[in-house]
Amino acid sequence: MLSAAYRSRLTVVLVGARNPSNIGAAARAMQDFGFHDLRIVNDYAAPFEAAQLEDSQLTVKSAVGAASVMAEARRFSNLAEAVADCTLVAGTTAIGERDIRQDVVSLQQAAPRVLGELQKDGPRVALLFGSEKTGLTKEQLSYCSLLTTIPMFAPEAARHLSMNLGQAVAVCLYELTREGFEGAKELPVLHEAAATAEDRERLTQLLLDVLHATGYSRRFPANASEPLVRQLALQLGESHREAMTWMGVLKQVLWREQQGVG
Amino acid sequence: MLSAAYRSRLTVVLVGARNPSNIGAAARAMQDFGFHDLRIVNDYAAPFEAAQLEDSQLTVKSAVGAASVMAEARRFSNLAEAVADCTLVAGTTAIGERDIRQDVVSLQQAAPRVLGELQKDGPRVALLFGSEKTGLTKEQLSYCSLLTTIPMFAPEAARHLSMNLGQAVAVCLYELTREGFEGAKELPVLHEAAATAEDRERLTQLLLDVLHATGYSRRFPANASEPLVRQLALQLGESHREAMTWMGVLKQVLWREQQGVG
Repeated sequence: MLSAAYRSRLTVVLVGARNPSNIGAAARAMQDFGFHDLRIVNDYAAPFEAAQLEDSQLTVKSAVGAASVMAEARRFSNLAEAVADCTLVAGTTAIGERDIRQDVVSLQQAAPRVLGELQKDGPRVALLFGSEKTGLTKEQLSYCSLLTTIPMFAPEAARHLSMNLGQAVAVCLYELTREGFEGAKELPVLHEAAATAEDRERLTQLLLDVLHATGYSRRFPANASEPLVRQLALQLGESHREAMTWMGVLKQVLWREQQGVG
Repeated sequence: MLSAAYRSRLTVVLVGARNPSNIGAAARAMQDFGFHDLRIVNDYAAPFEAAQLEDSQLTVKSAVGAASVMAEARRFSNLAEAVADCTLVAGTTAIGERDIRQDVVSLQQAAPRVLGELQKDGPRVALLFGSEKTGLTKEQLSYCSLLTTIPMFAPEAARHLSMNLGQAVAVCLYELTREGFEGAKELPVLHEAAATAEDRERLTQLLLDVLHATGYSRRFPANASEPLVRQLALQLGESHREAMTWMGVLKQVLWREQQGVG
């Protein structure tokens, strides 16, 4: 479980992102998974400023923006400065893109190391994503003490593998929060009463009556044996409410049979 | 990684997606994780056609398109048709958006069920995503026998939770390919042909006819709405054989009604 204090120690760093919409998409993924510290490394301010503007419009228009994340986001002109306060710098990279001398582990393997670091007292973890066009360069990768990749499907070795930036951020943050959030809403539990064996037995008997009254069991005796009918009745209604509804339906059929025949 | 045969049995269905870029992003996520069958449910062709055009331009420009997925993608004008050949229809939904009577499980819990179904011989699994604006509607959810949600961080109960469409598709497909196939192998293998969504839709319509013919829907209109009846029909027969048996039972009831009334 990732508490708010731990989540606040994760920094997402977008290095050289050019497309303002991608910066906004990354911010939105962060908001969805409860992370807040976004840093943009870029020589020039244009993409970041455009992303802030775009997000504020989105937030107003459709409430799908990531206003709080974007408002707190900061721009740095170089990577060293952006990760200066971090104790673990983890870089994301596509496999096979360039000659990487460092070990690359799958996201699933990297997650426990990142989570372990977040749970220590004090440290800060940076999760780096490269530009849409080139990914993290060799020089940028050299800042990382952990390299990770999202396993993708690669039918031909030649295929250039890279993932949409917002999707890559979303998948990484999903993996980090996969075990749950502390202090967040639990999934609502449906408290409806389950159907009992007694319900089911009543259904079985009713269904047998229906099969008999309608002549079904005469026409298809192989389908109408009691064990088989009991198996069918097992499927009628997982909840007591649904079982009651089925009983009502069957009773109505029987009642009609009695009317018609009588 | 899931084998190609298993991956080919997963269908991603975008229901009512309006933004061509989102359709393209979903297609790209599918390509990244090795899935191919994309279906678009939309009354009008414009978003789909715009997405195909946009993707072909992206593919030429920057090789980030999803040309093969987009080329094979198909549009349907209604959901029933789009999922007719599927044995498991799984819907994605945000928690707390509307009053859902069905159980919703986390993506992590849903994945083994989807993988187990993909592993059986023959069946096809549909993974449904709703429109950017509304998500899956109550009526659309009634086609689903499994509802799943990506756990997101919700500090305040009031917050409207919804995820970017492309990101949601990426996270779901990541989860499905995350464990390879080991977890799914432990599930029992059913050798019987599973009931398809088409079987289930025929059952729904037959059951509605029965409720109408017997007067049940007049007496208990609250229990006889089409989405509710579709949910009941989902329970009729896990296998094709059982579904056929149920159809026979319902047809017999209808036949008797016609005899009795006529």
